[in-house]
Amino acid sequence: MFDQISIIGCGLIGSSIFKGLKKVGSIKKIITYDNDKSVNEIIKKDKLSDEIFKSAGDAVKNSDLIIIATPISSFENVLNSIKDNLKTGSILTDTCSVKTGVSKIFEKINLKNSVCIPGHPVAGIENSGPKAGFADLFKNKWTILTPSKSTDENTIQKVSNFWESLGSKVKIMSDEDHDKILTFTSHLPHVVAYNIVKTSMSHDEEVKDDIIKYSAGGLRDFTRIASSDPIMWRDIFIDNSENILKILNEFTKNIDDFKKAITEKNGEKLLKIFTSTKNVRKEIIKAGQEVETPDFGRKKN
Amino acid sequence: MFDQISIIGCGLIGSSIFKGLKKVGSIKKIITYDNDKSVNEIIKKDKLSDEIFKSAGDAVKNSDLIIIATPISSFENVLNSIKDNLKTGSILTDTCSVKTGVSKIFEKINLKNSVCIPGHPVAGIENSGPKAGFADLFKNKWTILTPSKSTDENTIQKVSNFWESLGSKVKIMSDEDHDKILTFTSHLPHVVAYNIVKTSMSHDEEVKDDIIKYSAGGLRDFTRIASSDPIMWRDIFIDNSENILKILNEFTKNIDDFKKAITEKNGEKLLKIFTSTKNVRKEIIKAGQEVETPDFGRKKN
Repeated sequence: MFDQISIIGCGLIGSSIFKGLKKVGSIKKIITYDNDKSVNEIIKKDKLSDEIFKSAGDAVKNSDLIIIATPISSFENVLNSIKDNLKTGSILTDTCSVKTGVSKIFEKINLKNSVCIPGHPVAGIENSGPKAGFADLFKNKWTILTPSKSTDENTIQKVSNFWESLGSKVKIMSDEDHDKILTFTSHLPHVVAYNIVKTSMSHDEEVKDDIIKYSAGGLRDFTRIASSDPIMWRDIFIDNSENILKILNEFTKNIDDFKKAITEKNGEKLLKIFTSTKNVRKEIIKAGQEVETPDFGRKKN
Repeated sequence: MFDQISIIGCGLIGSSIFKGLKKVGSIKKIITYDNDKSVNEIIKKDKLSDEIFKSAGDAVKNSDLIIIATPISSFENVLNSIKDNLKTGSILTDTCSVKTGVSKIFEKINLKNSVCIPGHPVAGIENSGPKAGFADLFKNKWTILTPSKSTDENTIQKVSNFWESLGSKVKIMSDEDHDKILTFTSHLPHVVAYNIVKTSMSHDEEVKDDIIKYSAGGLRDFTRIASSDPIMWRDIFIDNSENILKILNEFTKNIDDFKKAITEKNGEKLLKIFTSTKNVRKEIIKAGQEVETPDFGRKKN
């Protein structure tokens, strides 16, 4: 595999990579860099690094693989601060939830002696920061790699093997396809969750208390998604705005149809919608993307 | 408590009441009626009744408490078929997710020798039918009772005690307040979940397969809500359409603001929304409405 790896950005994803690699024991040395002092204190205390560096440039010097696990808004800065220190033949990858934006930055910076392979482990949870990370975060989850067409097969294989060593399944696709699919599976659900929680909370205190009290009827599930890392999601929405706006327009058109159906008390139309959506969950369970436990297997009492 | 209880409608809720009561052992005889032959076969096979009746009228004759656990569209029919057979002094209650509609039907039928107390155990899961029921469904969940102002306190207390015997916490409020709060906590989340799943599935087969494959990014959580019982939800949306339309308009206004923010790449506005919604989950966990397990404590592999 690789002798030395650098992880730039030690939040949920970065720290989970560290823990996963240590569990497998496949890498000689894992170096970390994070620009947040409080994050480095946790990293030090919880021993989540073989060596903590104070500059990203120094952190990458002798590494064979560099993983950038920061929000996309920090991406260009990170690349600029490491580009002159990269070892010839090193590989760069990242973990951002948007990929065309990342490809553009890689192209713009144009690292001559390193190969860049954008990647995205589809494996987030609602908690963020290094304390939330765990070794099995990527296990049985998909990691999508979006190398450019000219990328050498051998290098792609190395990055695939790396993710597979963490238990992940790997899929190669174009960055455009990635961003289009993730708009449906992740970005639209997040827009909607943020806005449903916002709508419910835009009322006086007494109603808000009652809403929280009786949230088990559905709302609490949305609050899980709506409590994801704010900075990461700001960046995703701005970077993938074109795809998201297109799908949001389809979504609001469907909501308008729905309003019409309930205004007209059109039970037949409503039944048709509900019956079709019921089947989707079965397909998701069949595809191994969900376990068949009622109510997410929440603790019963 | 009560000597004899009749459960009319033996789906998830009706069968869970039976199982819960049997676990506690507080009722001498529990009679059931369901108009669906296949449901009665399961009831018989799994011994989910002390006596199965073929007519709702016969099923209520000697009962002290009658629980109507059918969708609201069957409600008036059920009441008409039992009204002449009710024991003097018997109590009627129900389990519908909408309450002003139920009050109106109770008023319309006007049972002279029985007392009606509308109720709603806020305790559904996505699975339906008698096989999905379990004794602890109501444990630590809220049951909301919406008696009319003229209802005698002693009778309200009896119904409260009944739900408490199943482990439920009981709250008394007006039917209007109930429907308003549930619009936020349950009805709006369901509208949105149905429509987000519908939007994602309105594409060609290849894209649909990919959406299912990568649904772990958020979408799969919505599919849980969107797989709830279609008939029950048709009835709720039609019955509570006025409240739902009002809140849906607020929701789509928020979505429009959000579209504007991402079009303008207004990161500050986005961050403000996400930070405020992140706090709501903490309040829900604090209120005991959720357990603090990342990703709903889903099986890690």
